Amino acid sequence: MIQLPEVIKNAVEALTRLPGVGEKTAFRMVMSMTNWKNSELVSVGSALASLQHLKLCRECGMFSDADLCSICLEEQRQSAGILCIVENASDLMAIEKSGHFKGLYHILGGVLNPLLGVGPDELKLDELKLKVVTKNIQEIILALNPSVEGDATCSYLKSIFPQSVNIERIGFGVPIGGSLEYLDPMTITKALENKKRF
Amino acid sequence: MIQLPEVIKNAVEALTRLPGVGEKTAFRMVMSMTNWKNSELVSVGSALASLQHLKLCRECGMFSDADLCSICLEEQRQSAGILCIVENASDLMAIEKSGHFKGLYHILGGVLNPLLGVGPDELKLDELKLKVVTKNIQEIILALNPSVEGDATCSYLKSIFPQSVNIERIGFGVPIGGSLEYLDPMTITKALENKKRF
Repeated sequence: MIQLPEVIKNAVEALTRLPGVGEKTAFRMVMSMTNWKNSELVSVGSALASLQHLKLCRECGMFSDADLCSICLEEQRQSAGILCIVENASDLMAIEKSGHFKGLYHILGGVLNPLLGVGPDELKLDELKLKVVTKNIQEIILALNPSVEGDATCSYLKSIFPQSVNIERIGFGVPIGGSLEYLDPMTITKALENKKRF
Repeated sequence: MIQLPEVIKNAVEALTRLPGVGEKTAFRMVMSMTNWKNSELVSVGSALASLQHLKLCRECGMFSDADLCSICLEEQRQSAGILCIVENASDLMAIEKSGHFKGLYHILGGVLNPLLGVGPDELKLDELKLKVVTKNIQEIILALNPSVEGDATCSYLKSIFPQSVNIERIGFGVPIGGSLEYLDPMTITKALENKKRF
């Protein structure tokens, strides 16, 4: 058996920590990297390490170079009185891409999950409660994924906001372009529940 | 459109340089990395940058922590008088895994490719010629891949070694576990050419 140098083993191990990268893929990547110039290796290494300097928007928690992100800086959104609560930055970007939401966002950074030790304190829900009052939020859209944890988090969130606030959850049903025959029974059930006069 | 911070763009760009990683995959990887601890980011970054310190065996060109790799250090191989010429370290490892070669290796580091400017000088063939003489090599096995460049390189290599050296090329045909119906005509042709009395 060939004994590979530590630098190779370490690089393979490092790459397997990325999602969707197994040992074989990581090894193939490292083999390709052994043909790179030193400067390329250094630039990739430092680009990844630099992620530690990533800053978040003080208001919504989105990635931002400045203290406030470009979304929170829009005056129209500040005065809209609508807050969309999402789990993470990717979800925020997915909603923003649709171009159909013109309010503020709040990134929870997770969902309640007692098994993993994620409770209301970890999600900083006290700050969120305060924000709803200070920002004069009239409507909250819960845009958490449909899962046991997402559902539980939505129920909990509903209980902590003032009664005067209108709380909604995004609609569930057949996705556009989806085909009924391939959808799971839960989605079909939701689609039937959420039927609308046509 | 959301303006993403430079650190994210840089990390995505860095990851797309890896083989098999497109922009979407890289973005997904970076999103996952935004949840990592700083220490993890630093360790992955430095593990990749450390690949620049990778050392090669002085004799065969294989990765090695020491001046000579574990294969070149085996006395039995040194005295066998057989040299297997491969394109890169991955090919060497594939042959070594079979456990059926007990001679020395030589990693070319490429194949002749005039279009990419790879000529005999780039492959350091003078050193290889010298090695064949000094190591008293009696048999050379050309283990280059079957491609236009691989074929051309084999032909060229055959012309530079002393006539006394027995030069062979690895056999081509139906791979074990392969199915004739799915194989390309070139492979079938080679398999027919290379038929053996049974």
